[in-house]
Amino acid sequence: MSKPTPLSGFPELLPAERVVERTVADSLRRTFALHGFAEIETRAVEPLDQLLRKGETSKEVYVLRRLQETSEEGHAGMGLHFDLTVPFARYVLENAGKLEFPFRRYQIQKAWRGERPQEGRFREFTQADIDVVMKDELPFHFDIEVARVMAEALVALPLPPMTLRINNRKLIEGFYRGVGAPDPAKVITVIDKLDKLPAEEVARLLVDDAGLDDGQAAQCLALASIATADTGFVERVRALGVEHELLATGLEELASVVDGVADLDGDRFSVVAQLSLARGLDYYTGTVFEISMDGFESLKSVGGGGRYDALASDGRTTYPGVGISFGISRTLVPLIARGHLRGSRAVPSAVLVAVWDEETRGLSNAVANRLRARGIPAEVAASAQKLGKQIRYAERRGIPYVWFPPTGAGGSDGHQVKDIRDGNQVEADPDAWQPPTSDLHPTVVPTTFEELS
Amino acid sequence: MSKPTPLSGFPELLPAERVVERTVADSLRRTFALHGFAEIETRAVEPLDQLLRKGETSKEVYVLRRLQETSEEGHAGMGLHFDLTVPFARYVLENAGKLEFPFRRYQIQKAWRGERPQEGRFREFTQADIDVVMKDELPFHFDIEVARVMAEALVALPLPPMTLRINNRKLIEGFYRGVGAPDPAKVITVIDKLDKLPAEEVARLLVDDAGLDDGQAAQCLALASIATADTGFVERVRALGVEHELLATGLEELASVVDGVADLDGDRFSVVAQLSLARGLDYYTGTVFEISMDGFESLKSVGGGGRYDALASDGRTTYPGVGISFGISRTLVPLIARGHLRGSRAVPSAVLVAVWDEETRGLSNAVANRLRARGIPAEVAASAQKLGKQIRYAERRGIPYVWFPPTGAGGSDGHQVKDIRDGNQVEADPDAWQPPTSDLHPTVVPTTFEELS
Repeated sequence: MSKPTPLSGFPELLPAERVVERTVADSLRRTFALHGFAEIETRAVEPLDQLLRKGETSKEVYVLRRLQETSEEGHAGMGLHFDLTVPFARYVLENAGKLEFPFRRYQIQKAWRGERPQEGRFREFTQADIDVVMKDELPFHFDIEVARVMAEALVALPLPPMTLRINNRKLIEGFYRGVGAPDPAKVITVIDKLDKLPAEEVARLLVDDAGLDDGQAAQCLALASIATADTGFVERVRALGVEHELLATGLEELASVVDGVADLDGDRFSVVAQLSLARGLDYYTGTVFEISMDGFESLKSVGGGGRYDALASDGRTTYPGVGISFGISRTLVPLIARGHLRGSRAVPSAVLVAVWDEETRGLSNAVANRLRARGIPAEVAASAQKLGKQIRYAERRGIPYVWFPPTGAGGSDGHQVKDIRDGNQVEADPDAWQPPTSDLHPTVVPTTFEELS
Repeated sequence: MSKPTPLSGFPELLPAERVVERTVADSLRRTFALHGFAEIETRAVEPLDQLLRKGETSKEVYVLRRLQETSEEGHAGMGLHFDLTVPFARYVLENAGKLEFPFRRYQIQKAWRGERPQEGRFREFTQADIDVVMKDELPFHFDIEVARVMAEALVALPLPPMTLRINNRKLIEGFYRGVGAPDPAKVITVIDKLDKLPAEEVARLLVDDAGLDDGQAAQCLALASIATADTGFVERVRALGVEHELLATGLEELASVVDGVADLDGDRFSVVAQLSLARGLDYYTGTVFEISMDGFESLKSVGGGGRYDALASDGRTTYPGVGISFGISRTLVPLIARGHLRGSRAVPSAVLVAVWDEETRGLSNAVANRLRARGIPAEVAASAQKLGKQIRYAERRGIPYVWFPPTGAGGSDGHQVKDIRDGNQVEADPDAWQPPTSDLHPTVVPTTFEELS
């Protein structure tokens, strides 16, 4: 086998890079669990008809077949999931009788899309989803809850600051109805183009395609221009003088969600009520979310979600839900590739136990076991090289400490441990010595993202 | 969408069952990391020619194609990996210049095989692999190390006791050469049938197919009958009076590996030197391992591995390795299905904070946040039902504590917390109250496997 080359769109990480991904995933899990979200894992495959149910051919589904498949087997018709929402909705329906509702779940898994690879867009990627799903009716306070949980999760990550943009479909639809738009859904579609087209162009489309007059179009553009870091948007919308019951509900809901995360707003996290945000026209029915990473706007959205009145339905029972998805590969892979993030070392070992000669390897093993018994990751030198080589072995892996058992050529009677970063060497007891907590496990090396981006 | 039905061979777990899988995976990770094994994750897909390189069509590879794939794209030729060894070998070659050797890695991931589903055999399954790989030459002491690491990992699992069977290919090949077998590889193939055929039948095959005379066949069967829980096998082999250099090396190696885990032998773990074990004829070259779960022998092997002199090679450099794989789905899914294992609760929450009415939901949220700030998973009641209903809500999820904020209809001035298992209710401070550690997170409910199996 000659040296293989990477597969475009299927990112893989080196061990020190994997430390970053593992740290991020564990941090997310911790926050989600603190809020009572249960973890599930769904199979990688779904029936093809479910994957394509919403005409999602743009998701570029990967279809599976067995190599030895005979045509009469009828085994075809399975594909890899392209998100975690389709499998979650199916899981809820399949297990509805065994689940307790409201069902809070998180899911951190890979998904696959055969789309053209580009920065932040991969064919295989990991994402972290939280959702709350209920039978029949899901109280509104869960919208506030999922925003809160994801915001706390983002604040805790060793990543650049994140911005959570929030809007409400009732608010904008009510506004468009209030101004007398004949086809509010069409207005939403056109307004959604604001990030690609200049405002004048969008105004023209509102008239030509959405059937508005110039005054109505101006009102809709005025609404879309509102973005506030607090509930200030409420007054600004009211100042536009449009009235509609749905608008009033939407304003109240959006204000509650923004208020619910306001205390987290700071260096690590911002919240913005952004009234141009439309997102996922086809199924969101209330709150909508979008996450971006400050200084990395070229990656566009790194997460998003919202409320759907029918996450799933079996014809008799409808399951409304609200959730947010965060793209782990989407954020990490570009940051790692640009050199902004790395693990503090490539191995879990905090200590390398030196070996004086192969005859006394057992003594070195015993030291390592005594350290491990107290939760200190340790490895034993691969060979009884000269001490300098063993220290360089540790250095190359980023292992901070080298342990010297007694009776060695070092001439010492007792155990000694050396911090190879500053050269400081002290006598130590393998049953008592403790490294600083910060040295115990690999960590994500902190980077000033502001300077680098 | 009507109620979906499970896909045969693609097991999925309910939330409380997922607690078991998560606990097992975290426990394995912890042990592997304590021994300095770095975690990596490889993509799910490999080029088809690599997956089929060893003529492994029996592995029933799942082939991928994009739904919109045009024939001229040449994108075909990717399949899902059927184990973690093929991707690991490819990863080592691809990143050889960026890895430090010896490279200790673990990998806990799913793999896929299109084979016929049966108990313990799935089309999608999770396994945990540890391997040490080196350039050119891998010292023998790593065979002892991987046995030790996996043995410690198995002892720590909340599962039935495990048995690690060990043999050595040099030992048996040297013995067969020593008795004068014209084709030692053929003898190994025949001896491997001992678990399916009666000894007389195997004896006949040794004569007919492997070209041995009756005396030689008897010697080979005598070797295969040896199984000892310690290094006693050495004397028993010597008593057979066969001599060969390779046999001597194999005896020494096997004795070292058995010795290396002997102190772990006990209620939770057994080691057996089993000289009939052949396993993976085509690539193992020294130590071979097989893991079984006591009382669940019908599942056959739940793990295995060994030493290979050429895990990977790019034509210039050869990478020898030694490793063991443990089947997480193979062990857990049948145990869970038979009711032997479950999580202590379906949600992470240790506390349900009651809600008196929707107006004071904010106060209940604040209590939950104060608990979470100290690492106590908490959720807030979904609605302000009667207290009895809120307590039953907790009960159904297995949440052990219900918290009552002050000023409620309960007539209490301060915070109170109730252990709903024994009904004990006490005043408590949300900034100081601490549940017992055993209640903090869901755990695996201990079961006496001996009684159940």
